[in-house]
Amino acid sequence: MGLNGKPLVSIISAGMSKFGKHDGLLAREIFAEAVHEAFTRCPKLDPKGDIKALFIGHMGEAYEHQGHMGAAAADWAGLTGIPATRTESACASSGAALRAGIYATMSGLADVVMVGGVEKMTHRTTVEVTEYLAMASDYPFEQWHGITFPALFAMMATAHMHEYGTTEKQMASVAVKNHYHGSLNPKAHMQKEITLEAALASRYVSWPLKLFDCSLITDGASCIVLTRPELASKYTDMPVHIIGSGQASDSIGLYQRKSFTSLNATKLSAKTAYELANVKPCDIDLAEVHDCFTFAELMAYEDLEFCPVGKGGKLLDSGETRLGGRIPVNTSGGLKAKGHPVGATGTAQAYEIYLQLTGQAEKRQVKDAKIGLTHNVGGSGATAAVHIYRSDQ
Amino acid sequence: MGLNGKPLVSIISAGMSKFGKHDGLLAREIFAEAVHEAFTRCPKLDPKGDIKALFIGHMGEAYEHQGHMGAAAADWAGLTGIPATRTESACASSGAALRAGIYATMSGLADVVMVGGVEKMTHRTTVEVTEYLAMASDYPFEQWHGITFPALFAMMATAHMHEYGTTEKQMASVAVKNHYHGSLNPKAHMQKEITLEAALASRYVSWPLKLFDCSLITDGASCIVLTRPELASKYTDMPVHIIGSGQASDSIGLYQRKSFTSLNATKLSAKTAYELANVKPCDIDLAEVHDCFTFAELMAYEDLEFCPVGKGGKLLDSGETRLGGRIPVNTSGGLKAKGHPVGATGTAQAYEIYLQLTGQAEKRQVKDAKIGLTHNVGGSGATAAVHIYRSDQ
Repeated sequence: MGLNGKPLVSIISAGMSKFGKHDGLLAREIFAEAVHEAFTRCPKLDPKGDIKALFIGHMGEAYEHQGHMGAAAADWAGLTGIPATRTESACASSGAALRAGIYATMSGLADVVMVGGVEKMTHRTTVEVTEYLAMASDYPFEQWHGITFPALFAMMATAHMHEYGTTEKQMASVAVKNHYHGSLNPKAHMQKEITLEAALASRYVSWPLKLFDCSLITDGASCIVLTRPELASKYTDMPVHIIGSGQASDSIGLYQRKSFTSLNATKLSAKTAYELANVKPCDIDLAEVHDCFTFAELMAYEDLEFCPVGKGGKLLDSGETRLGGRIPVNTSGGLKAKGHPVGATGTAQAYEIYLQLTGQAEKRQVKDAKIGLTHNVGGSGATAAVHIYRSDQ
Repeated sequence: MGLNGKPLVSIISAGMSKFGKHDGLLAREIFAEAVHEAFTRCPKLDPKGDIKALFIGHMGEAYEHQGHMGAAAADWAGLTGIPATRTESACASSGAALRAGIYATMSGLADVVMVGGVEKMTHRTTVEVTEYLAMASDYPFEQWHGITFPALFAMMATAHMHEYGTTEKQMASVAVKNHYHGSLNPKAHMQKEITLEAALASRYVSWPLKLFDCSLITDGASCIVLTRPELASKYTDMPVHIIGSGQASDSIGLYQRKSFTSLNATKLSAKTAYELANVKPCDIDLAEVHDCFTFAELMAYEDLEFCPVGKGGKLLDSGETRLGGRIPVNTSGGLKAKGHPVGATGTAQAYEIYLQLTGQAEKRQVKDAKIGLTHNVGGSGATAAVHIYRSDQ
């Protein structure tokens, strides 16, 4: 393709609910909170007429015994009437919504498109949530045999430890970093720093992954508003352009993969996104990557080519991915500390990059950030979506 | 917008599994059957490289305890690697996939896009299926109180009978017509004609709807392949152009609607589709409409403006919507006789129109058919998608 960095679409606004526990609220009500912020941030956007389509990532019907979330969410957000479609690609459901929204915006059929995501999880027990999340893995060959997501990622982590010498301490250090970032984000589920000792002392969930290596069960919603680049100035003086977009699939079953130490869907989608954007990994100023488990962040460093293969742990050790480093990763707190309301995660990553590139990230602002990246993974890597953002301010 | 009948995209191939019972197969395997036909029909399409994105409608994770159907279906269809996203808008899941695929194709990011849908239902009990389908309605205000889909459509049918004098006999006659059409379709779930007497004598499911007023619990899959109109000749001499596309939403709860006798989402999406296509309802040569219940077909006649409001029953009585009439409706057998594997229905409608407009519908061929329409509804009408097709042969 090769659009050489020409904006595909522009983000003109964004919204996110507080991530955490929202007792007594329905998913659609939490989504309305995110939408309200998006309209408040962009007064020139008409809540009653400008949005021409909605794609909303939502992973699980089981949580609320509720399908048809596109229509339900549109209705509660005051958008009744517009085309409203739920996308589901497991934990990459709103990464896929973002991709679908980019298609819609570029098609010429819809000038302004909202994409977002939502999940309401905390009213369910941990056992129930574990079962619902497992639906993102293969039923006959994985779920049936009792494999859960901590176990799937533990197998990958183990392979990486064996192959490259990655350590439990390095994984725990991802949690320490992301909790520090989360402590600076008033919308994060967890806003307390943790110590390396506490992370290492937490109980094993699935060896080598411990409780503090796992992301959180969280309620939350997020959305961003897209338009064609030539229309952005009608709505805002501070657009953020999406200059690269890649999405890719892989076998749903881990057992079918050639490698356990990298995700091919990440590599494929990153390749497409980098090419479209005409940027190199070293051009990225900050990134939100899919740290559903701490190990996954280290693997993402390698698959996104922030460092050579096998050196993810070393990049973490160097401090370069911490706020103040060369390429801060997960300044929002990531899935680990901000929380992981699965359907909402992809566009919540985009929300963080939007804040950072428009200088609105307050205590966790990355200085002179111009180019950002988001990386959203579904399941054990059967889906990945990578997007690259640029601010021209 | 107003593209005045200029093709939005072109269909270059299509496939559909046999609809019926597929004991022992997974949804992804049934979908692979549809994909195999699409590749067989179009030898110039490279199964290993041409398809650049997949959107697949799939309604229920509960049937197979399986989410993440985009990746799973892509993998089993030999398409691993491409962006593959599940869309879910209840029974309009693949109508929404079609719309998403049109966006993708028109965006310029993907030259050839597959859209489709699948559902595997018959291994579940009727009670289970009724519960899973109910997730398309509102949980707190409908499901919670025990309202099922037959009950929701029964309330609409009752209102229409009261307002316009529509009769149980007219509804039963829809079933007779569609079973006649189904008897001519070797892929239909039910291929036997039924009598009016048998339909009227069947037991009530939810008054005034009887067993023979209800569509079928069916396994099945369907897909169509889209490209930009200027690329179509590379793949086929018989493209079918999509010249109109509309999708709309409404409140998920029936109780929120102003009218029980029409679906506003159908009216909105039809308006958009007719305008884009620059055709009038009287220009339509044949249509596949969403007859989840016989009554719904009569209501569709009115909402799509095939007849004046309140005259749906009279149009049916006239015989004009039967094969050989002025505007044959549901020549495939419809959801009533062909079957309703919910996620597959929207693109199965498109498959029938594709066959008809390319002269491949055999015993049920509509003579000189040039312009066709599909109408796919989600839930009790919270989603509708209307598409208009033209053959230039």
